[in-house]
Amino acid sequence: MRRTLQADLTLIDGELRPGVVVRIGRDGRIESVEQADCAADKPLAERAAVSPAFEHQARHAPSVKRLRGRILLPGFVNAHSHAFQRLLRGRTEQRAHGRSGDDFWSWRETMYRVTDVLTPEELEVVSRFAFLEMKLAGFTHVTEFHYLHHQPGGRPYADPAELARRVVAGAEAAGIGITLLRVAYQRSGPGQPPNPQQLRFVDRDVDTFARHLEATEAALPQGRIVSSGIAAHSVRALDRSYLEGLADLAGDRPVHCHVAEQTRENDECRAEHGMSPVELLGDVGLLNSRLTAVHATHLAPGDAERLGKAGAGACICPTTERNLGDGLPNLIDLRAAGVSLSIGTDSHVRIDPFAELRMLEDGERLRTRSRNVLADGPGGSVAPALFEAATGGGARAAGLPGWGIQKGSRADLVSLRIDDPSLAGIACTPGAAGALFSALALGGHPRLVSDVWVAGRQEVHDGACLRWEQACEDYAQVVRRVFG
Amino acid sequence: MRRTLQADLTLIDGELRPGVVVRIGRDGRIESVEQADCAADKPLAERAAVSPAFEHQARHAPSVKRLRGRILLPGFVNAHSHAFQRLLRGRTEQRAHGRSGDDFWSWRETMYRVTDVLTPEELEVVSRFAFLEMKLAGFTHVTEFHYLHHQPGGRPYADPAELARRVVAGAEAAGIGITLLRVAYQRSGPGQPPNPQQLRFVDRDVDTFARHLEATEAALPQGRIVSSGIAAHSVRALDRSYLEGLADLAGDRPVHCHVAEQTRENDECRAEHGMSPVELLGDVGLLNSRLTAVHATHLAPGDAERLGKAGAGACICPTTERNLGDGLPNLIDLRAAGVSLSIGTDSHVRIDPFAELRMLEDGERLRTRSRNVLADGPGGSVAPALFEAATGGGARAAGLPGWGIQKGSRADLVSLRIDDPSLAGIACTPGAAGALFSALALGGHPRLVSDVWVAGRQEVHDGACLRWEQACEDYAQVVRRVFG
Repeated sequence: MRRTLQADLTLIDGELRPGVVVRIGRDGRIESVEQADCAADKPLAERAAVSPAFEHQARHAPSVKRLRGRILLPGFVNAHSHAFQRLLRGRTEQRAHGRSGDDFWSWRETMYRVTDVLTPEELEVVSRFAFLEMKLAGFTHVTEFHYLHHQPGGRPYADPAELARRVVAGAEAAGIGITLLRVAYQRSGPGQPPNPQQLRFVDRDVDTFARHLEATEAALPQGRIVSSGIAAHSVRALDRSYLEGLADLAGDRPVHCHVAEQTRENDECRAEHGMSPVELLGDVGLLNSRLTAVHATHLAPGDAERLGKAGAGACICPTTERNLGDGLPNLIDLRAAGVSLSIGTDSHVRIDPFAELRMLEDGERLRTRSRNVLADGPGGSVAPALFEAATGGGARAAGLPGWGIQKGSRADLVSLRIDDPSLAGIACTPGAAGALFSALALGGHPRLVSDVWVAGRQEVHDGACLRWEQACEDYAQVVRRVFG
Repeated sequence: MRRTLQADLTLIDGELRPGVVVRIGRDGRIESVEQADCAADKPLAERAAVSPAFEHQARHAPSVKRLRGRILLPGFVNAHSHAFQRLLRGRTEQRAHGRSGDDFWSWRETMYRVTDVLTPEELEVVSRFAFLEMKLAGFTHVTEFHYLHHQPGGRPYADPAELARRVVAGAEAAGIGITLLRVAYQRSGPGQPPNPQQLRFVDRDVDTFARHLEATEAALPQGRIVSSGIAAHSVRALDRSYLEGLADLAGDRPVHCHVAEQTRENDECRAEHGMSPVELLGDVGLLNSRLTAVHATHLAPGDAERLGKAGAGACICPTTERNLGDGLPNLIDLRAAGVSLSIGTDSHVRIDPFAELRMLEDGERLRTRSRNVLADGPGGSVAPALFEAATGGGARAAGLPGWGIQKGSRADLVSLRIDDPSLAGIACTPGAAGALFSALALGGHPRLVSDVWVAGRQEVHDGACLRWEQACEDYAQVVRRVFG
């Protein structure tokens, strides 16, 4: 169905503009973006009135929706997700060890207890639920870093794409776009075989991986919102020849890799290869414009420049990186090197694109003891760079062409309420759209989300979506089986 | 009016318990807290059914409210607020200087532009609005660090309590409890007179301060939810004899002081006095159990122990401390020394008690690269310490006796929705209340807040409160005058 939308403010080219009319075509893409006649010097409250030009259009448009009191943004892209880890929410914030003994590695033990037991049906239920929570939070596309492939013990399912199909079915049922990254996993660490809890992740060599990837891609439903890529789990989990094989195999697919999340990984990589993880990725042929380095927390000197020179991106997952005690990446260096940033909710401690994007800036402020670090130039606001990471940067990481409110892009859109207490009283002076955008960047939250469209189809209405109650019930069954 | 409340889960003694019946007396205090008959080994979904014991009570209670699908907590206490700074939201996230030149000090320039122009009427409007936003977020009491006292240029108003009365009137109109701290401010720095923009804050000597304090306390409305204290703005803003005078004056009032927010303050203090700010506070007689050190970001070695030994508290304002690029306090040392922690939203970049409390833990994870730092002992969750900071710790800072869901406490209560997407699917196994509490600690947000009671009076109903629209309109007028 064709639609025409006009919100009070629309994010175009890094700023919130009044009077923008967005037309969505039958193909689920944006057909046109036009500026309605709108006196820019009037306060927003007055501008919110429908403009005469729009009224004229409205009479001639088949399906018009005036989004009053709303801001229209491109859909958010969740560039790093392990959907099943939603099960861990609230379950790992109790101290497992003695005083200050908990860390990433002890968290991983708990995570493995979940991967040990999930059935295919359960994985689908959990994925659908996590994706629905994402959609309600304004994410319209997710890049799923999918590493759970086989039966407990490591035997492939009759269909080696079984679990990948389940995850994608969850995304389709949830009505969210997905890029499924089939993850290569080989070993527990340098020279060490996988431990028993990792056997469900392992394709023991790159030929096996290639066969399973082929099966997976053959099984993926043809559609406008499903695509495929690959991932090297980490330089920890794959030896050099495996990494080289993945580089040969990659083609034009997006390629992700956990990079430098933990200092231990860096130390082990240097011991095994005599170089940093990023240098190794370069050496084996994976460092190029299709690469997204996930986390990039503890990059070695020169690594940011290496990523930038190759046209690679970096996906930052601030909530998870804080939750796991990883540390703060150096985003100033990454941006200076021209590395495209994206965000991910990763382990789903929370699913909140606003929290992720604002923590990009907050983390840099903490790390450098200065303010407005990610703003571009004097007078520039931090908001454009932050929202770019949550939208265009994420789309790049997912291998999606053309994102944002522009002609030809997939019509993935999110409308936000202006009348929330957190934004109240800001957009009431001429030229206050900038202040509102900043307030949104530093203080947005998922309950601002009013409506969500994915490929032109409205998926969230006034903060609610279909199928949520059933998804909750099904999910609760799985929780009871896993933790009950 | 007497009331009896029973939520699905109630926070008592650091855990969420089912079947708790809370009775509120006509005096606005909690009359009794009883455990209804409730099989603790049943899943929450089943327990949510009204228990027979409660049904019995319900028939005999005059006003019963069954809070289905709700968690009942003590009201949150905002232990550090500058209400008027709500005006700055969204207005300081644009780069003022060149590359990475912005910091706390450049932010302060913007803040002073607001303090330059506010009228008494405007201060009341802005305070009421900020306090309403707090109430909607679950804060039932605020400790206002009130430093705007005089006319532009520094002349006292005819009534020296004019602006203090305005702030308290704003709190009363908003229906939130308040401890008004009249702040002493003398100078711009060691040996430097106040600069012109600080003249509205200055009582030039402690005798003047004492007179104005007396006038302020005489003007405060007698009531159950208004109380008074004092603050030394900082060791930067007051010389030694002024600080000594405040110590003589303090009596049993709560005393707050910004401490070690910036390393520059520490350096200047050491140059002027040869000691750290905390040591100086000890030297002048202010370091005792009524003191709350606000921020405590860059404490000198031994300062945490000094605070703990004196029975002092520390108020952490994580959102503001990140926004201003201050840094991360060492909470492990403070807790080990027995220092009571509280939270504040300070500059109101956001007003979100959940964000503040979870950042206590997240900041420590970042700083120490470990997890579950503020959990008590093996198996302990991080949640109790975090919610204690947002409730009992804040009440201590405000000088309020007895806080929490217990007999005799002021009936300040907050109910939260369990059915929010962020908490969905967690509380569905036996014994899952702990997981739910952890999920709330790490992922709560203001839109969870359903109902709020202050001193027994219901102030928020299903996420909304009276007088909000009018408060927004009045506030918008001020925004237009200040920024338009």
